[in-house]
Amino acid sequence: MIEKVFRDPVHNYIHVNHPLIYQLINSREFQRLRRIKQLGTSSFTFHGGEHSRFSHCLGAYELARQVTQNFSESYPDIWDSRENLLTMTAALLHDVGHGAYSHTFEGLFHTDHELMTQRIILDPESQVHQILLQVAPDFPEKVASVIDHSYPNPQVVQLISSQIDVDRMDYLLRDSYFTGTHYGEFDLTRILRVMRPIPTGIAFQRNGLHAVEDYIVSRFQMYMQIYFHPATRAMEVLLHKLLERARKIFSEHRDYFAHSSPLLLPFFQEEVSLKDYLALDDGVLTTYFQSWMLSPDRILADLAQRVINRRVFKSILFEKEDEDHLEILRSLVQEVGFDPAYYTAIHRNFDLPYDIYRPAEERFKTQIEIVQKDGSLRELSSLSPLVKALTGTRYGDHRFYFPKEMLGENDLFSFQGKTFQSYIQNDSFIYGEPKL
Amino acid sequence: MIEKVFRDPVHNYIHVNHPLIYQLINSREFQRLRRIKQLGTSSFTFHGGEHSRFSHCLGAYELARQVTQNFSESYPDIWDSRENLLTMTAALLHDVGHGAYSHTFEGLFHTDHELMTQRIILDPESQVHQILLQVAPDFPEKVASVIDHSYPNPQVVQLISSQIDVDRMDYLLRDSYFTGTHYGEFDLTRILRVMRPIPTGIAFQRNGLHAVEDYIVSRFQMYMQIYFHPATRAMEVLLHKLLERARKIFSEHRDYFAHSSPLLLPFFQEEVSLKDYLALDDGVLTTYFQSWMLSPDRILADLAQRVINRRVFKSILFEKEDEDHLEILRSLVQEVGFDPAYYTAIHRNFDLPYDIYRPAEERFKTQIEIVQKDGSLRELSSLSPLVKALTGTRYGDHRFYFPKEMLGENDLFSFQGKTFQSYIQNDSFIYGEPKL
Amino acid sequence: MIEKVFRDPVHNYIHVNHPLIYQLINSREFQRLRRIKQLGTSSFTFHGGEHSRFSHCLGAYELARQVTQNFSESYPDIWDSRENLLTMTAALLHDVGHGAYSHTFEGLFHTDHELMTQRIILDPESQVHQILLQVAPDFPEKVASVIDHSYPNPQVVQLISSQIDVDRMDYLLRDSYFTGTHYGEFDLTRILRVMRPIPTGIAFQRNGLHAVEDYIVSRFQMYMQIYFHPATRAMEVLLHKLLERARKIFSEHRDYFAHSSPLLLPFFQEEVSLKDYLALDDGVLTTYFQSWMLSPDRILADLAQRVINRRVFKSILFEKEDEDHLEILRSLVQEVGFDPAYYTAIHRNFDLPYDIYRPAEERFKTQIEIVQKDGSLRELSSLSPLVKALTGTRYGDHRFYFPKEMLGENDLFSFQGKTFQSYIQNDSFIYGEPKL
Amino acid sequence: MIEKVFRDPVHNYIHVNHPLIYQLINSREFQRLRRIKQLGTSSFTFHGGEHSRFSHCLGAYELARQVTQNFSESYPDIWDSRENLLTMTAALLHDVGHGAYSHTFEGLFHTDHELMTQRIILDPESQVHQILLQVAPDFPEKVASVIDHSYPNPQVVQLISSQIDVDRMDYLLRDSYFTGTHYGEFDLTRILRVMRPIPTGIAFQRNGLHAVEDYIVSRFQMYMQIYFHPATRAMEVLLHKLLERARKIFSEHRDYFAHSSPLLLPFFQEEVSLKDYLALDDGVLTTYFQSWMLSPDRILADLAQRVINRRVFKSILFEKEDEDHLEILRSLVQEVGFDPAYYTAIHRNFDLPYDIYRPAEERFKTQIEIVQKDGSLRELSSLSPLVKALTGTRYGDHRFYFPKEMLGENDLFSFQGKTFQSYIQNDSFIYGEPKL
Repeated sequence: MIEKVFRDPVHNYIHVNHPLIYQLINSREFQRLRRIKQLGTSSFTFHGGEHSRFSHCLGAYELARQVTQNFSESYPDIWDSRENLLTMTAALLHDVGHGAYSHTFEGLFHTDHELMTQRIILDPESQVHQILLQVAPDFPEKVASVIDHSYPNPQVVQLISSQIDVDRMDYLLRDSYFTGTHYGEFDLTRILRVMRPIPTGIAFQRNGLHAVEDYIVSRFQMYMQIYFHPATRAMEVLLHKLLERARKIFSEHRDYFAHSSPLLLPFFQEEVSLKDYLALDDGVLTTYFQSWMLSPDRILADLAQRVINRRVFKSILFEKEDEDHLEILRSLVQEVGFDPAYYTAIHRNFDLPYDIYRPAEERFKTQIEIVQKDGSLRELSSLSPLVKALTGTRYGDHRFYFPKEMLGENDLFSFQGKTFQSYIQNDSFIYGEPKL
Repeated sequence: MIEKVFRDPVHNYIHVNHPLIYQLINSREFQRLRRIKQLGTSSFTFHGGEHSRFSHCLGAYELARQVTQNFSESYPDIWDSRENLLTMTAALLHDVGHGAYSHTFEGLFHTDHELMTQRIILDPESQVHQILLQVAPDFPEKVASVIDHSYPNPQVVQLISSQIDVDRMDYLLRDSYFTGTHYGEFDLTRILRVMRPIPTGIAFQRNGLHAVEDYIVSRFQMYMQIYFHPATRAMEVLLHKLLERARKIFSEHRDYFAHSSPLLLPFFQEEVSLKDYLALDDGVLTTYFQSWMLSPDRILADLAQRVINRRVFKSILFEKEDEDHLEILRSLVQEVGFDPAYYTAIHRNFDLPYDIYRPAEERFKTQIEIVQKDGSLRELSSLSPLVKALTGTRYGDHRFYFPKEMLGENDLFSFQGKTFQSYIQNDSFIYGEPKL
Repeated sequence: MIEKVFRDPVHNYIHVNHPLIYQLINSREFQRLRRIKQLGTSSFTFHGGEHSRFSHCLGAYELARQVTQNFSESYPDIWDSRENLLTMTAALLHDVGHGAYSHTFEGLFHTDHELMTQRIILDPESQVHQILLQVAPDFPEKVASVIDHSYPNPQVVQLISSQIDVDRMDYLLRDSYFTGTHYGEFDLTRILRVMRPIPTGIAFQRNGLHAVEDYIVSRFQMYMQIYFHPATRAMEVLLHKLLERARKIFSEHRDYFAHSSPLLLPFFQEEVSLKDYLALDDGVLTTYFQSWMLSPDRILADLAQRVINRRVFKSILFEKEDEDHLEILRSLVQEVGFDPAYYTAIHRNFDLPYDIYRPAEERFKTQIEIVQKDGSLRELSSLSPLVKALTGTRYGDHRFYFPKEMLGENDLFSFQGKTFQSYIQNDSFIYGEPKL
Repeated sequence: MIEKVFRDPVHNYIHVNHPLIYQLINSREFQRLRRIKQLGTSSFTFHGGEHSRFSHCLGAYELARQVTQNFSESYPDIWDSRENLLTMTAALLHDVGHGAYSHTFEGLFHTDHELMTQRIILDPESQVHQILLQVAPDFPEKVASVIDHSYPNPQVVQLISSQIDVDRMDYLLRDSYFTGTHYGEFDLTRILRVMRPIPTGIAFQRNGLHAVEDYIVSRFQMYMQIYFHPATRAMEVLLHKLLERARKIFSEHRDYFAHSSPLLLPFFQEEVSLKDYLALDDGVLTTYFQSWMLSPDRILADLAQRVINRRVFKSILFEKEDEDHLEILRSLVQEVGFDPAYYTAIHRNFDLPYDIYRPAEERFKTQIEIVQKDGSLRELSSLSPLVKALTGTRYGDHRFYFPKEMLGENDLFSFQGKTFQSYIQNDSFIYGEPKL
């Protein structure tokens, strides 16, 4: 086929040379990703971060294309170029099952975007499946097995999913670009240059050590500053509470929801077909939230308008051992008239920036290997003091969320407000030492 | 107030120092702009261009902030710094009345985003209005008059709306950044440095001539390549046809639309309140289109799925004098089973890149003035051969749109297809000289 | 060979895959280019523009590598891949004969960097020649013929030298990057994508028209703003006058120059061997100028310190028809004690941004051809109004240079100063209408 | 004065608003910095890194201008705006005493650029001194005292010299930009936003913690990858050996050096006046090296041509405890005919990325303080695990340098070569375990 290109701010152009890839991009299920924001609620904090999962999936594919082309040319002995199409396809489709506001939604409705990805690929009804079948009868299964890590070739699996894969490389660069923060930037060209297949998977040449180190640090910084941003999580908390309220009152107001938000019914009833799942996207959910602003249920209506108009909760840090004492704050929130079940929340975010292979652990990691000049391997953290510092430790925090009204100064409930604020110092909960 | 900042990829940070601006940003009507894409259908061609009008309005405000601060410091004799807040407010709100897919929508439903901007600012019910009232009882009117060009101070008016204003400067840079094309880039820092107030409005110092020239050329290139892109206009055509079909069949299927797309009713009935207008956004429209894919009306359903799944029409250029002969193509389209009223379209896009002041014309332009060392003024095109070349001429093209199926090779209607294609050469309509 | 890379800010990496290229880069004659600034006196105006011809030549080579690799893969029928090495070599070596401050130096001493490039390539003594011989006995001649346009394959010749070649593409991007101006930027990726060989040379596909147009405009802007900057030319004028003075007094002060600036002797005596030529570079000349600051010749010493300490002349524009009247200004300069032969100068800079092929002209141009979908060619300016505006016209100006002292306000020669200044308005010479 | 600007790729524009700064930039001593490369021998490894100390000093000044302007506006109670001019002046002049290839040169000739900076500022003969005197009779002393840390106001001193000062911030960004590596990039805008004066010096607000952390990591990466690059140090080693050889043979060949390299004589004789010091620059040294290529001293001539033609030594890592065993390698180098005193070298590079204040140490550091919401201070590494990992440890390596010829394959001294290579594994010296 004549090469098609998509202009892309991160990779300049996405090059499509294979008709299969072009057809997959044009499939219903893939086009749907245009309607789902890559970063969910982050765009409420970083207004530039409005890019879609569509663009991220194209980016991951483009990296897979570049890597497999390079492997085919430079390492024909150890890389089987017949895996190129499979690798590119898996990269393109790795997130095809993502839904609107996945993090929040999945927790509440027990859906799972990874499972949905598998279903989209394997379901005979999906356009994606039908297109994949053109390659071979077992091609859908092969693609699915790469994505769920069961494919026997570890090189292919690690390119799609490991501590340094095409997915992560694309989203770090892309999220950095669109949010306008630069913490996620790293030397992609160099990493692609030093990445190489080895019998057990993927490794990196010694002269690219610092680029890999920089990638790990960049990823850590993106988590700490962008993905775990307190205001973004505030929006997640609001969404969670809103959907929880809707589900709670659904059985008594079935007609209301059947009329105002029909596509959510299967989720409230927990009977979700693939078709039901694919019918939802950011726009549909937001349309429903807008209609809920007029609901007779005061809490539903209020939470809906808070989401739509971005009236986020405020938060403070707390130490895990103080968690029980937060009850004091919840009581104060209740005293001023907010139901703490819907107007307070605890939110935890933790990430393991890097880890070595620990076979004893259930969800062990494939460690990053560095190839020395004589061909021997060294695990990354043994060569990099920066990575060493980040290895094996989870970083993150616990936050307590509550209505901004609790921090108001001249309002009616001044006593509760002042008491509430006396438990806060430097944005943290200080139990036992109120500074009244 | 303590300065608030918004991270912005184009201007690095948006700085908010005045509580009025902060409150306006947090108003319902302004937050709504998060749900409207700046570029409408362009994101279907340039997948990065998914940024919202919210981000553009913040950007235009930030430029107004920088310009007015600079004017206050550097030109206190000729610039009245009491205009700063008015200018910043007008910049922030200049697009607040934009709706979903404005270009298409307005043409069909006779709404007008400029009028809506005025209404939002002046309507006592709007949060925006109430916030503006805090400054002075006549402040809403003043803001509205800046935006409709009737405010007596030409400096303020030209900063908000002229051939080189904060609106255009922001959108060129922003649309370039997010689409990943670079044609709209120009030397903003230099332009801000050489921009200065003069009694009759805004002018630019002689030593910034080339930066202004570059801006005009960049704007021209953005129009030719991004805004007038054939695929983007193909999506506009589709949207237009879809909404036209819905309006056409509305009276016979009132219940269907009342149920599937309630918020569109006022538009079909042409009784649109401000509230009705503000209830629509990209997500709502797209939700409706998705539901229409299941409509019993075959044309509505087909056009809806073409929009949702991005099955755009193809197009060819034609010369104005050949327009009548396009009937031949329409007949061929009809012969293979497509209703040409919904499956073909003519689309024109023309832009006047720059013009001098022509008082005789109805919609005359404020020409760009260059201040020489001795204080005298020279009109831009008299100093720049590049601008001269673009002055006073409209650039653009006429395109005829039709279903991609007409270009198919091995299909059932091969005779019509071949005949159709015989009228096309180099993507243009060649009447009278078919190459059969 | 194992690929070697050079980190490059413009192209990210310069890739070297062929041992010939690597050896040429390491040759004495090529390493010498590290000691010659690409932009000559421009770095005195744009302090970032301190990059060397070494980096530009690597860049031009890298573009040739990318283009020929692409041609070999995409157009094997019309491009002979056996030309790849020749093309890359010619690109690398196209400027190897450049000397220190070429423009000024060549005018005075009748050297010619193009001729020197030929000599370096063809001289059996040069390392470059010896390395080239490894390919074939006639390889040096072939490389030389590409650079002097006599090589029979027009594709190769046009890649190296035409209105859009690897030389120009690299220097526009590189000079933009290092000076920190952005006027020279254009969409390189797209141009490389749409560039293609045709039987008569090189052409560009229709869908890249705007990128080519943008390149022409960018080049025009770089000339107007960077290369023709009045302060840069002021430095050229100073250098010219300094070397002129040295040559003038050389015969009377042979010993002085033999001691202070031995490597210039062959140039003063106009007996320059290749070895003499290669011994000069920016550092050597500057070292000599520093020693001349202590010369007993007052003019030589003063001009030398002006060069070293960047005490540049000022300038005004004048119209060609007023040139004779500049005598008035020269007299005033002389009256206050400066020898006008060394302290005033006329400097012209003109460039032809683009031209069509005009066979009747002596130095005709190869016009830029656009390939339409049906394979027919259209000349660029017939498709682009912007390029049309720049076609066939020389742009530039005439400037008169004089000591900054003439513009002083409170100095001893106030009468002459005031008279002098009365002939200047808006930085231009206004003969006949003094505003005294 | 009318603001003057210098276009700068890193800060966009350098703004000069004070005549003192403008005069200092135009002084002889400051213009001399145009002739000294900021990165010394690094440009032989990263060809883009050809920028001068002139541009770095302008950059450091521009940061000082921005910081002091911000402090004056935002913190008038704690920052004395009368310090602005002093701070900007000290930033501009902090490196004015740097010489050509300082690192190498100073070690050999016992000059000291910090001392020279003091002398230039304090010497009544220097233009810099005379310009500074215009402000006040004690202004030169004040500027000098800021630079040598004895000025009583710790805010001013820390802005110019601390673990996060205008010097370091500029050179990290600048060296990154020009070399085309991106490791030194950090979020300058944010750091400038959160930087604030406190009574004991300079601190950073809590919400900028991650930007400061990123700066520390970026600085670490620049040291490891750019400043300590083995090829750059190879060039330093060569320069060192060349100058050492010249000094060694100077007494027997006084006339030769008086003729070929007169300005070096005071250095060989160790009687260096300020004027002698200022007469040297990169161009002068390189001119001398070029003349030495023809010296009758075989070692001097060979080392000179290696410097000029970039024939660098190769190197291997070694552990400190194996240093004595390197004698084996030196013997082999000698056996094949190279004098190990001039053809081998040990080179160490170590850097302390960050440290807390350790009063017991002689050269203690001013630690970086983070200001919490309640005004209390926290030391940086106590809040950042990444910085913690880098605190108090020196990072770097020991390398042994030797002629590339020792790694040749098919040459005359194959036995020594093979033996030599048997002591190398993965680019490291492996004593005791030769793999022969």
